[in-house]
Amino acid sequence: MRIDIITVSPELIKSPFEHSMLKRAIDKGLVEVHFHNLRDYGIGSYKKLDDTQFGGGAGMVLMIEPIDKCISKLQSERNYDDIIYMTPDAKTLNQSVANTLSLKENIIILTGHYKGVDQRVRDKFITREISIGDYVLTGGELAAVVLCDAVIRLIPGVLGDEQSALTDSFQDDLLSPPVYTRPAEYDGMKVPDILLSGNFPKIDKWREEKAYQHTKNIRPDLLDE
Amino acid sequence: MRIDIITVSPELIKSPFEHSMLKRAIDKGLVEVHFHNLRDYGIGSYKKLDDTQFGGGAGMVLMIEPIDKCISKLQSERNYDDIIYMTPDAKTLNQSVANTLSLKENIIILTGHYKGVDQRVRDKFITREISIGDYVLTGGELAAVVLCDAVIRLIPGVLGDEQSALTDSFQDDLLSPPVYTRPAEYDGMKVPDILLSGNFPKIDKWREEKAYQHTKNIRPDLLDE
Repeated sequence: MRIDIITVSPELIKSPFEHSMLKRAIDKGLVEVHFHNLRDYGIGSYKKLDDTQFGGGAGMVLMIEPIDKCISKLQSERNYDDIIYMTPDAKTLNQSVANTLSLKENIIILTGHYKGVDQRVRDKFITREISIGDYVLTGGELAAVVLCDAVIRLIPGVLGDEQSALTDSFQDDLLSPPVYTRPAEYDGMKVPDILLSGNFPKIDKWREEKAYQHTKNIRPDLLDE
Repeated sequence: MRIDIITVSPELIKSPFEHSMLKRAIDKGLVEVHFHNLRDYGIGSYKKLDDTQFGGGAGMVLMIEPIDKCISKLQSERNYDDIIYMTPDAKTLNQSVANTLSLKENIIILTGHYKGVDQRVRDKFITREISIGDYVLTGGELAAVVLCDAVIRLIPGVLGDEQSALTDSFQDDLLSPPVYTRPAEYDGMKVPDILLSGNFPKIDKWREEKAYQHTKNIRPDLLDE
């Protein structure tokens, strides 16, 4: 899988790709991540990227021309399955979308900044708009990293232990049951007896019940779907 | 505001705090962000942090003792308004929670990793659990940065243009209307005439309608609330 990230501040999101899971996935050759600094496609000697809104209002808007130049260059080099724009005014990322994207070959992720991008960019180039949640971030850069993490970890071979992704929250529409590790007693707080019983069918049943109960308490909306 | 982030990989999330809005907020003295490497509180000469699950199952679980030592040390130094655990099995972050947290003085953010933390950590220390969305990430680190960005930009004085945060998506339960900037025509695509009219009451009305229509199309659930 190849991911091209277009952003006004690539340096902002370097470190997550240089450590932990994302680094290992890149080192194993399971994913390529390329950063494109929108500034390189800026207009004129000042490399202008943004301007004020037509119709008035606070906040700068990214212009279409630099984005057009960058996307067109990439598209001349290979075909892309999806050109994604990260923006809070879009459908929200969920595990099912992450699963779908993990099967793609080449994707572009455009990250908005300031007040967003000129609407004509969205009309002309974008095939999928994704929000990571109902809150506003300074830019789309962190959202792009979150999307990359959620997607890349699902590519076969990335996680050391395949089973671990399968028992995550949301893969079965339930939140995870509680987990415990050593010591069995800490500061008077004991691990539930059942988990020490060695009776695995009973443990599975206990976990299912706890997962259901936890989901019902915290996120009943997940059970309605 | 002071934020203490407890994590097994602080280096993973360094770069977002060294650039753009987060850096400016820190440089202006409007927020302090401190990283605490959980490894420094690990057990024994190997600085052990995690162990397998009681009851069996894939994935390592962060042990209570190192987390207890780190949180207890911080609590001995100052009072905390909230001790937050980032985890997918919690209520989802929204703009209203971000607003609430932006008024706090001192918070701790504990980031899970691997299969999560021993449930007793959550029972004993955590005052608020937050998910950033219905998808699974490799660890809570990126979620912690997302939370920091969403919260810190709301602290008065952080954004250059106060108005800009007030007209964001979600501050009024509607998604943003489309935005346009120069040129007025690009590759045959024109900016809507209304935005060039200079009739600001009409422009406001147009934006309200577009915001409502966009919300109705993409996120009708926001209108039901």
